[in-house]
Amino acid sequence: MKLGFIGIGLMGRPMVLRLLAAGYEVCVWNRTREKLAPVVEKGARPMDSPAALARACEIVMMCVTDQHAAEAVLFGPAGVAEGASPGTLVVDFSSIAPQAAREFARRLAEQGVGLVDAPVSGGVPGAEKGTLVVMAGGAPEHIERARPVVMHLAQRFTRMGDCGAGQTTKLCNQVIVGSLLPVIAEAVRLAEAAGVDATRLPEALAGGFADSLPLQIFGARMAARRFEPPLGAAAIMLKDLENAAALARERGVSLPMARTAAELYRLLEAQGRSGEDPAVLVELLAGRSAR
Amino acid sequence: MKLGFIGIGLMGRPMVLRLLAAGYEVCVWNRTREKLAPVVEKGARPMDSPAALARACEIVMMCVTDQHAAEAVLFGPAGVAEGASPGTLVVDFSSIAPQAAREFARRLAEQGVGLVDAPVSGGVPGAEKGTLVVMAGGAPEHIERARPVVMHLAQRFTRMGDCGAGQTTKLCNQVIVGSLLPVIAEAVRLAEAAGVDATRLPEALAGGFADSLPLQIFGARMAARRFEPPLGAAAIMLKDLENAAALARERGVSLPMARTAAELYRLLEAQGRSGEDPAVLVELLAGRSAR
Repeated sequence: MKLGFIGIGLMGRPMVLRLLAAGYEVCVWNRTREKLAPVVEKGARPMDSPAALARACEIVMMCVTDQHAAEAVLFGPAGVAEGASPGTLVVDFSSIAPQAAREFARRLAEQGVGLVDAPVSGGVPGAEKGTLVVMAGGAPEHIERARPVVMHLAQRFTRMGDCGAGQTTKLCNQVIVGSLLPVIAEAVRLAEAAGVDATRLPEALAGGFADSLPLQIFGARMAARRFEPPLGAAAIMLKDLENAAALARERGVSLPMARTAAELYRLLEAQGRSGEDPAVLVELLAGRSAR
Repeated sequence: MKLGFIGIGLMGRPMVLRLLAAGYEVCVWNRTREKLAPVVEKGARPMDSPAALARACEIVMMCVTDQHAAEAVLFGPAGVAEGASPGTLVVDFSSIAPQAAREFARRLAEQGVGLVDAPVSGGVPGAEKGTLVVMAGGAPEHIERARPVVMHLAQRFTRMGDCGAGQTTKLCNQVIVGSLLPVIAEAVRLAEAAGVDATRLPEALAGGFADSLPLQIFGARMAARRFEPPLGAAAIMLKDLENAAALARERGVSLPMARTAAELYRLLEAQGRSGEDPAVLVELLAGRSAR
């Protein structure tokens, strides 16, 4: 089966490499064409446009930065909608607003094209190891059609409801992850300032109530002030928390923690650091006796 | 070897039951004598006072609610200090301020008694399964002497430095756990309000960046509005976060997330609910379409 993949960024690249390693024929497209090199080198076939890619593939996967990029890829000039035929299935790993996912699904359905919103959690390490957690929304038959492919990328692919439910679940996920990262930064700074070796925190707390993948991965990077190569971007966290805040406002939910976290990412943005790894949060927090 | 254990509460009871099951002779004392019944039934020997217990045991363990209780048990009338001899080792699982741990250690050292501050993470489920994470401060030889006993209760027993370092590490742990619980409550309320089945969140997010023991244990209780039997108390979280805030103030560290969390526990306290399981946080957060 021929697969398409649009968006060869931090996440898309390792995902495509895994699909190639699993033996799939993968057509790829990226707005910045130079970013295709590492996957084309491994056998992916570069396409001239999302439309050309959709014409060639039964399942079109995509993982792009935001709603604006997703809309351009799907419905812009030479977009997926232009090349897709009835029966084409689009699996969108991007994180966008649930309302946008429902709207995109409605527009694609008009031409017989299915959409599964399938945002992921687990970051670059999860994409590399194929241990992502995928939260999906869409018709059960579309999700089952995508499952054999997605399970090369993920340890878990859960249907949470109709289109948009994957994105809603991802926002809940990001309320947790986006808030947890500054919390871990606070713990690291407190340890340092109080004279405890913060680089030993992830191991000392492993297996307890404070443990998590972000503690092991980002906590270790924070304690070592190691931000390269980036495993994500503060700007993405801010975007997700703003989408969560918009949904919460609409539904009357209070998010005191997630809103405080969003303010911290906004401070990073004001410092011109929102393109950096979210571990740079640790440098935002004051601490007299910290290094 | 004869062990002593003072404080047979939510945590102390399963810890003593594990030590008895491992074949140790365990002497016990508790301020409220009736709470001894479930461990005495399984073979623990009730003592008349902490002093009498210290006279009978080489290693005196304790797990009490707060600093005030710890001081009373150690240095009050008929306290541990009265009965202990040179060579007695006190292992304090209680969570108290690092400064208090150092002060207690200094006073006990005057009579040749060692102290290991050994606060734990993992809650009642961890105590029952013997999978606690123990963060310790004290002399290396004291920690190694305690290790064989503690490893019946814990999966991890890490020396983080001299006396007080265990408590400092526990405060870092609690900055994370105390902040994570309201964050999980926000995710649960957001899911409910947006029409996603929140009882499925823990499983759907398992293994991803949002996953943690608190998500699996407290997230599930929050989604089900199941608060009994309590696995902890909101008041304990508030106490730990206040100790963390005091240390942070002294060292000039900013804790925007942990301070926001503390305010939420303070709201629970104002509602007279601080004795309840911290999962009741979920009821604090507004959400129009939530049940």
